[in-house]
Amino acid sequence: MSERIIYADRPFRDEFIEEIHTIAPGYVFKTELQPEDLPNVEISLGWNSNYQEKLLASSNLKWVQSISAGVDQLPLEAFSKKHILLSNGSGIHSESITEHVLGIILGYSRGLFQAQRAQSEMKWLGSSIHYQPIQGKKILIIGTGHIGKMIAKKVKALDMICYGINTSGHPAEGMEKTFSLKQLQEVLPEVDFVVNILPLTEETTGLFDQHIFEHFDSKAVFINVGRGASVKTQDLIQALNKQQLSFAALDVFEEEPLPQDHPLWKMDNVLITSHIAGLTPDFQKKLMSIFLTNLKSYLATHNLQTNQVKLFAGY
Amino acid sequence: MSERIIYADRPFRDEFIEEIHTIAPGYVFKTELQPEDLPNVEISLGWNSNYQEKLLASSNLKWVQSISAGVDQLPLEAFSKKHILLSNGSGIHSESITEHVLGIILGYSRGLFQAQRAQSEMKWLGSSIHYQPIQGKKILIIGTGHIGKMIAKKVKALDMICYGINTSGHPAEGMEKTFSLKQLQEVLPEVDFVVNILPLTEETTGLFDQHIFEHFDSKAVFINVGRGASVKTQDLIQALNKQQLSFAALDVFEEEPLPQDHPLWKMDNVLITSHIAGLTPDFQKKLMSIFLTNLKSYLATHNLQTNQVKLFAGY
Repeated sequence: MSERIIYADRPFRDEFIEEIHTIAPGYVFKTELQPEDLPNVEISLGWNSNYQEKLLASSNLKWVQSISAGVDQLPLEAFSKKHILLSNGSGIHSESITEHVLGIILGYSRGLFQAQRAQSEMKWLGSSIHYQPIQGKKILIIGTGHIGKMIAKKVKALDMICYGINTSGHPAEGMEKTFSLKQLQEVLPEVDFVVNILPLTEETTGLFDQHIFEHFDSKAVFINVGRGASVKTQDLIQALNKQQLSFAALDVFEEEPLPQDHPLWKMDNVLITSHIAGLTPDFQKKLMSIFLTNLKSYLATHNLQTNQVKLFAGY
Repeated sequence: MSERIIYADRPFRDEFIEEIHTIAPGYVFKTELQPEDLPNVEISLGWNSNYQEKLLASSNLKWVQSISAGVDQLPLEAFSKKHILLSNGSGIHSESITEHVLGIILGYSRGLFQAQRAQSEMKWLGSSIHYQPIQGKKILIIGTGHIGKMIAKKVKALDMICYGINTSGHPAEGMEKTFSLKQLQEVLPEVDFVVNILPLTEETTGLFDQHIFEHFDSKAVFINVGRGASVKTQDLIQALNKQQLSFAALDVFEEEPLPQDHPLWKMDNVLITSHIAGLTPDFQKKLMSIFLTNLKSYLATHNLQTNQVKLFAGY
């Protein structure tokens, strides 16, 4: 009988590999694959696109545990056709992204980014700096999943007012009002901060285009910690130049790394971060908590207990 | 009978001047003084040092309402000798300073300041950025008055652990532990963020010197939103260069504006803000809420109802 392989696209600490062996003694754990291994991969932790064709050609691949929350890079249709289970890393990055978003809201509102720019020119701004209290300001969180709810909870503690948007407009914990994605244009003029944390789907690709930016309040701040392809970057640049909004903090981009000659780099009303909002030092531990829980249920019942992705929806 | 004057060292909005007239119909409100007015000033809102000598020479000056929380610039000893009442602006700036401090903690911890520096060089840092979760990090707030307590409340909502320091070490709302100023060196090695919001007194002048910085954790961040003269700037620069601490965010300086040729401007591990932490758009309203409350009680009983400064202590 051939090996049954659990493949991981990156190394993990020994303590976790030992746990995998204890839970799944009948399996071999590999982080490097030889050509003859590919047909024997049953579980893939992470997804290596170099192996995509061979893994999908095999009938043994049963379950893919994605490293990230977003699964838009994965061959979802093929998974669906072949009944391959998929779970994601949703929840791992919630705290980090929440703190990142709060850091941007406060850094902008207290003039800290402006102060740092002035510092590089050895310029004392005095009270000419732009500042505003965040108390009572309205934030619109587009995407009311795990991360959205955590942001809602924290901004409420800072006395902000939190609205949410999701596909259907269903209520979400901690959000004063929720709207459907179709109502986006309607609610935009009312809010001071707009945070995109939507996964990338057909519906959200290119969602933030000139027609959407037209509805921003001219003092509003746009924060994208979702997916780069949800924003039409050229439209955003135009909207910023036309002062249709005041500031954009972007962590994700249509092309990453952002090309050296990209005009965004030089814009004073843009803060660029290099896809770091989700970085967390306990990453392995948090991912393994999901993976090992699912590994147990997969072995027992061929079902995933947590973080399963509905393949038809894409998140 | 000569006029009784309420003098303000800056203009206020009409709505507030009307309220002053309603509460104190026997008084004249002036924002400009002629030499013959000086002996008739009974109440001074703000303190104009050009008039100091003449105002103190008069026996009519009874009450000074300071604009700021700090009163170290005022002739406290003379006030004390002449039984002049003093109230300060404590509380007006609490929300702003709290949001400023949170912005620094989060901006530093999520690598936002580092990212902005990289942006100016069009550099994509990727995950090489320095970041840390703030959950579970310890913050030491030196000064447990109104501002300190508000910071404590908000950092707790962000799941940080908050310690406080005050003169005697008495407990303070929202702070897990409190220590006396004498225990500062003892508690410093334990904490990740050190926030100075102490008023300037004899005891706090030059408090943060090389002997204190030696006790910082090398990963710690120092935030000064108190008084510039509480920090020996040269000692701080040396400590940062020796990596005795990791980062300093300074809003106040021994000399303000910070001189153009000052070495602090060019330090990557320093964020300079231009005495802006306390700026608030509702300043007049907040100050008037204190002043008008006290004006009523002063007229009725010659006592101040709120924000009275104990002249012997200096805050």
